Amino acid sequence: MYDILKTITGPGDLKKLSLNEMKQLAEEIRQALMNRLSKHGGHFGPNFGMVEATIALHYVFDSPRDKFVFDVSHQTYPHKMLTGRALSYIDDAHFDDISGYTNPEESEHDHFNVGHTSTSVSLAAGLARGRDLTGGKENIIAIIGDGSLSGGEALEGIDLAGEMDTNFIIVVNDNDMSIAENHGGMYKNLRELRENGGKAETNLFTAMGLDYTFVADGNDIQQLIDAFSKVKDSTRPVVVHIATQKGKGYKDAEINKEQWHWCMPFDPETGKSLFSFDGEDYGSLTGEFLMKKIKTDPAVCAITAATPTAFGFTADKRKEAGRQFVDVGIAEETAVALASGIARNGGKPVIGFNSTFMQRTYDQILQDVCINGSPVTILSFAASVWGMSDVTHLGIYDIPMISNIPELVYLAPTCAEEYFAMLDWSIEQNKYPVAIRVPCNGVIHTGRSVQTDYSELNKYEVTKKGSGVAILALGDFYQMGEQTAAELEKRGISATLVNPRFITGLDTELLEQLRSGHSAVITLEDGVLDGGFGQKIAAYYGDSSMKVKCFGLEKKFYDRYNAVEVLRGLGIVPEKLADTAEAMLGR
Amino acid sequence: MYDILKTITGPGDLKKLSLNEMKQLAEEIRQALMNRLSKHGGHFGPNFGMVEATIALHYVFDSPRDKFVFDVSHQTYPHKMLTGRALSYIDDAHFDDISGYTNPEESEHDHFNVGHTSTSVSLAAGLARGRDLTGGKENIIAIIGDGSLSGGEALEGIDLAGEMDTNFIIVVNDNDMSIAENHGGMYKNLRELRENGGKAETNLFTAMGLDYTFVADGNDIQQLIDAFSKVKDSTRPVVVHIATQKGKGYKDAEINKEQWHWCMPFDPETGKSLFSFDGEDYGSLTGEFLMKKIKTDPAVCAITAATPTAFGFTADKRKEAGRQFVDVGIAEETAVALASGIARNGGKPVIGFNSTFMQRTYDQILQDVCINGSPVTILSFAASVWGMSDVTHLGIYDIPMISNIPELVYLAPTCAEEYFAMLDWSIEQNKYPVAIRVPCNGVIHTGRSVQTDYSELNKYEVTKKGSGVAILALGDFYQMGEQTAAELEKRGISATLVNPRFITGLDTELLEQLRSGHSAVITLEDGVLDGGFGQKIAAYYGDSSMKVKCFGLEKKFYDRYNAVEVLRGLGIVPEKLADTAEAMLGR
Repeated sequence: MYDILKTITGPGDLKKLSLNEMKQLAEEIRQALMNRLSKHGGHFGPNFGMVEATIALHYVFDSPRDKFVFDVSHQTYPHKMLTGRALSYIDDAHFDDISGYTNPEESEHDHFNVGHTSTSVSLAAGLARGRDLTGGKENIIAIIGDGSLSGGEALEGIDLAGEMDTNFIIVVNDNDMSIAENHGGMYKNLRELRENGGKAETNLFTAMGLDYTFVADGNDIQQLIDAFSKVKDSTRPVVVHIATQKGKGYKDAEINKEQWHWCMPFDPETGKSLFSFDGEDYGSLTGEFLMKKIKTDPAVCAITAATPTAFGFTADKRKEAGRQFVDVGIAEETAVALASGIARNGGKPVIGFNSTFMQRTYDQILQDVCINGSPVTILSFAASVWGMSDVTHLGIYDIPMISNIPELVYLAPTCAEEYFAMLDWSIEQNKYPVAIRVPCNGVIHTGRSVQTDYSELNKYEVTKKGSGVAILALGDFYQMGEQTAAELEKRGISATLVNPRFITGLDTELLEQLRSGHSAVITLEDGVLDGGFGQKIAAYYGDSSMKVKCFGLEKKFYDRYNAVEVLRGLGIVPEKLADTAEAMLGR
Repeated sequence: MYDILKTITGPGDLKKLSLNEMKQLAEEIRQALMNRLSKHGGHFGPNFGMVEATIALHYVFDSPRDKFVFDVSHQTYPHKMLTGRALSYIDDAHFDDISGYTNPEESEHDHFNVGHTSTSVSLAAGLARGRDLTGGKENIIAIIGDGSLSGGEALEGIDLAGEMDTNFIIVVNDNDMSIAENHGGMYKNLRELRENGGKAETNLFTAMGLDYTFVADGNDIQQLIDAFSKVKDSTRPVVVHIATQKGKGYKDAEINKEQWHWCMPFDPETGKSLFSFDGEDYGSLTGEFLMKKIKTDPAVCAITAATPTAFGFTADKRKEAGRQFVDVGIAEETAVALASGIARNGGKPVIGFNSTFMQRTYDQILQDVCINGSPVTILSFAASVWGMSDVTHLGIYDIPMISNIPELVYLAPTCAEEYFAMLDWSIEQNKYPVAIRVPCNGVIHTGRSVQTDYSELNKYEVTKKGSGVAILALGDFYQMGEQTAAELEKRGISATLVNPRFITGLDTELLEQLRSGHSAVITLEDGVLDGGFGQKIAAYYGDSSMKVKCFGLEKKFYDRYNAVEVLRGLGIVPEKLADTAEAMLGR
């Protein structure tokens, strides 16, 4: 087992292999993928599809002198195995030595930390320009999946590349899939090219000024080696379009491509996940809620940028929703502009984003939506310390990013009842652009009655009246506030507890009332403190004797962290928060 | 004069005209443009080029039922004249009735406030989807200039449109120019199409899935009417590619397209500007500074996204810089990613942005640059209350937007000496991503010696030691701080004055020292307060007796304001700030 893979300490060892040995190596890489993925989970389909292409790339080019930039970089497990990191796939004890993405701290063969899509071509164009400025001669190769092509940054980069007069190679890994099916007019052209040996009436890449070459079987090592050898040391920008099979080598993944894009640990025999989750999640609940709205109101329209299941739009729901569901493909900016247009013409658009991908739409939220006052609804998922923990997928920057944009109403529900009341209100009102920070601490049903109308902006809710200290506990840190109040109660202090609900404005009336009977305020928010909610409260009381302490995350790039440890380190646990409150009260 | 134009109260009146009358109308529109532009200034070339196309659009389609979405919308002066707003062009007393962009508050014929490029197709796609959801039948028409096509959002939108199965019309106004010359591989394809009657080996638009039609003379009303009539009520997405002449009808503008993109008031006889500015400006000075660096260091590379003269790169300098200058075209995201790549491969990239356009790159700054720690330099121009005053071009949101991104060093120089010292340091260091907020209150030479090394981060400079109150005056509000201190001195109070220099971090050592001898802190920043610098200071002192008051702009969409009035309204004038300080000191 792993006879050849174990001998590969770097690309140099690979170059000594015969074609048959490379084919054997491909099998071993798939076994190693299976070993890690079935036990640890991760990106499945993208890696199984890229085994042969990765072998051929390292066979033909000379990494790290020649530089590969992998788009999204979740398809780089084979690359990692061939560049000294195989142990993390074949030896379970070493699973955690590596990240799921390229990472310059791991290897000189990785040039960027990459996790968002559609960046590779522009980043690699920069490497090429840097090379040319400093007199280098190496090949620069961007490897981009077809799903990522629809992203604005990728298309900008390809257009830029078309004007370059130097060595620059773009490998387009075309497996006819994004996470879900691909969306956009360009995919007709890619399909035509794929089905006709690289020939078609028109060609997106030559239209952008690039040379073009096609590899019919992107899982055939020899064909790939031939194609890459031809473009090596090219003095012109060129696209190598390779047709691969997503999930190649594992039957179930070849068929059910969307489900096998990413996996939890599973039984390799049956393909069944080892985790069964019977509980509720906000993704599915949101999808169900929106489907009900869709069925009763033809104006409601759900929008995704290639991550439909993030808010519960599985294939069956997408089909059922018909034209009331739009997947724009990986094209977040367009998702937001589209929503603004829909809202301006009588529709009721709801975008579902992971917070980390919403980051791509700052200007669209500000310009296309908020300046125009378009009543869109944006749902921000995984905006939390409990969200994704890879450095490239953190969802904790959203409050500073969007809450300081004028006119936007950013809501922070504290439980299921409140979330769906806010969502319903947002869809039905037509005055404000609204974003909702979907809780990330599990689906909590409180049973308490919640407000149904949020049109009186910036009214905070006092959920417990006390004195001395007031705890302003935002969104899914509300329960932390509750627990802190309970802890203080045990210590003989009856704190006031506030559910602010609105991230984007101050309830100055309440803040004034708190001056009577309170000398301390604690703010809690599940995101980066800098530029966030609590600092506004602190500034409001800045010129007074009210003491304010703000709790939230640090402005830093957390990576593969343990949320419990992070929160403890920041003193965001009920006991420590109670200690802080006591100290602020001078006790 | 204006015989026909004066009779046009809306598109209905236009539809009654003969072709010859429309030609006469075109001449009158150009006279009206000349009247306003020579006295008031504004966008010149784009409007002179679009006269005939606008007449034909309004002749064929039925606005406001049919809906036009103009990209950037600085080419909509003819549209405004044909929709009831001609008075603002022919009667000097009414110049200020209108904005320079489409504006729904002005007219039912305008559907969005638009000022940034590349948004029209996605916004219009939203209108089309809204129409289809609500059972409408109108035509939706996006009008986009070729320069805007290279922007990611536009390419995403065109790709999305290619998949639509409904009425959707994209008019591509091709004048072979952005503000400066166009950049990107696609322009070869557009040129080939233009020069061969719409035929070429490949076609960007059909490659994206759209139907395509070509109009050879986009300044010929009859040709345009014929083409628009053919696509009216189309049930498929279609591109109408029209070749127009930028600046058409004014000789000097036809030749010197870049200079005549936008104009200050000028003498119509000679074309000479009525304003001569002999003083220094940071754009030109920056260009000169960078050219010196470029000549002595082949690794230095200046980058623009289609606004080269914003930092002094006039055509001669661009030529002289050769491969050390890159114009990526309107493609801000790629500008940032490219810079990251250049920095990772030995280059020293410097991007020059207007703050308002930097807004398009939040995710690229965070992901492509900061997570990777790439030592790029970003210059942020017009980030100020004294910057552009149109609601779509405000530069005042940058501090909340980028200063809360981890790892970024955002510097706020207070004078010319400090600005160039910071710029030089940033280019030569290789540890940090750096952005510099270029002052906007004129070029102030203080002659004082400034630090040359800023690698010890977050060290504020005490420029005047006093007691009682400390004024932290950031960037180009430093002089306001100086004047406030002087005013206080007159009143017998010797304030401490601090030049924070670093927007992105607190000098906690200094802040601790201030506790001794000071009971009040005033912060001043030339940007939106929410999420900004001062609130961090307030939060730092939140748990203490130190009183803090923060001064800056409100979180709102200012529009065509007077900076003096805005600042006075906010109490940001030395006398009022001194009053505040006195009050805080209890005097």
